Amino acid sequence: MQTKPPGVKTIQGTIEEKLKLLTGEEVKIVASGRTDAGVHALGQVIHFDTCSPIPVDRFPAALHSVLPADIVPLQAEEVDASFHARYSVRSKTYRYTIDNGKMPHVFWRRFAYHFPYPLDREAMQEGLGYLLGCHDFRSFCASGSKVQDYVRTITACNISAEGGLLHVAITGSGFLYNMVRIICGTLLEIGQGKREPGAMQQVILAEDRDAAGPTAPPQGLCLLKVEY
Amino acid sequence: MQTKPPGVKTIQGTIEEKLKLLTGEEVKIVASGRTDAGVHALGQVIHFDTCSPIPVDRFPAALHSVLPADIVPLQAEEVDASFHARYSVRSKTYRYTIDNGKMPHVFWRRFAYHFPYPLDREAMQEGLGYLLGCHDFRSFCASGSKVQDYVRTITACNISAEGGLLHVAITGSGFLYNMVRIICGTLLEIGQGKREPGAMQQVILAEDRDAAGPTAPPQGLCLLKVEY
Repeated sequence: MQTKPPGVKTIQGTIEEKLKLLTGEEVKIVASGRTDAGVHALGQVIHFDTCSPIPVDRFPAALHSVLPADIVPLQAEEVDASFHARYSVRSKTYRYTIDNGKMPHVFWRRFAYHFPYPLDREAMQEGLGYLLGCHDFRSFCASGSKVQDYVRTITACNISAEGGLLHVAITGSGFLYNMVRIICGTLLEIGQGKREPGAMQQVILAEDRDAAGPTAPPQGLCLLKVEY
Repeated sequence: MQTKPPGVKTIQGTIEEKLKLLTGEEVKIVASGRTDAGVHALGQVIHFDTCSPIPVDRFPAALHSVLPADIVPLQAEEVDASFHARYSVRSKTYRYTIDNGKMPHVFWRRFAYHFPYPLDREAMQEGLGYLLGCHDFRSFCASGSKVQDYVRTITACNISAEGGLLHVAITGSGFLYNMVRIICGTLLEIGQGKREPGAMQQVILAEDRDAAGPTAPPQGLCLLKVEY
């Protein structure tokens, strides 16, 4: 789905370049999934094969010493050959952060969506509840996506406040293209009272992208955690 | 104390340039105090005189529309002529943020000092306690500062944790040049067990910059609040 202008560096390309520097090998990395431009990750997981003699627990520090400051390896462990960063995923947690202050918080301007209008948190939490369980989520999938199966299972949805920020955390077995951003665009309409909380269920049942709200902007989204 | 290379824009210069754009006047702004390069402010206060017909409650939005995204005006109110952003200050609160995670948190890399070694929070809180009250703080003043009076009153000191971050908040009647950064450099030595908590009192009594620890780096420091 994603395209990038030629010459623009990807996170994947940068990590592969630095792994080549460290190991001397042409290493291909596999991530748990791709993220759109502008979307962040605090808990992305990748796998790769290497014959490097660098001990596995030293890999994060070694990579950290050569990677740019905005890509930080947190930990490394050896896995058996059956592990696959994408196909072995049990669940992922995404967090969408709304800066609900009147004026944007300068520290969060690149990591949150500034939305300075009143929001009804209880209505939003109620709306989120309808997502729980196993549903056909095609209403929350960007048109043009070519997946065959739109059924996903959402296991947890939660809103929490941190100062003027609202964090919407959603955990599920998997996510469709733009799914969390479209859920949050719909949720913001519920928070403003433009839709009832129960509208979330009607949107699911409609099985139609046009039934949902707009796609919330990318900078608020963060891949928080991947579980295997 | 601070110098800047010619041609480098200051926050003050940028705001004055935009105020001229909005008001047509040569406006001089006065801040509660200056901050070093790399130091942040979430609650800086400025005053200025203007004959502009822009209503005072519209000034933040008007300025926000022309300022770069990293300078955000939060609110404006009219004050009487006796108010002075610097001389009328009753207290200031600075916050120093230590990212104590093994690897740096990417969202905080410009707003926290990454210090990945074990820290004893209780010892640090105890050490901070010795700062409370009215003391001659010249041990915590950058050498070369030309102030006459080194006596300041600290009214609150507190450490709080937020995930892997430690926030050290210090409120006082006023601060000497680099005072919070030198306090935090000393505090980090206490946190590592290189000094006892009581060393903080000995450093105060020494009245000698060499008795204190190093100056912690600027990016962890933030002017949080100014009270009048």
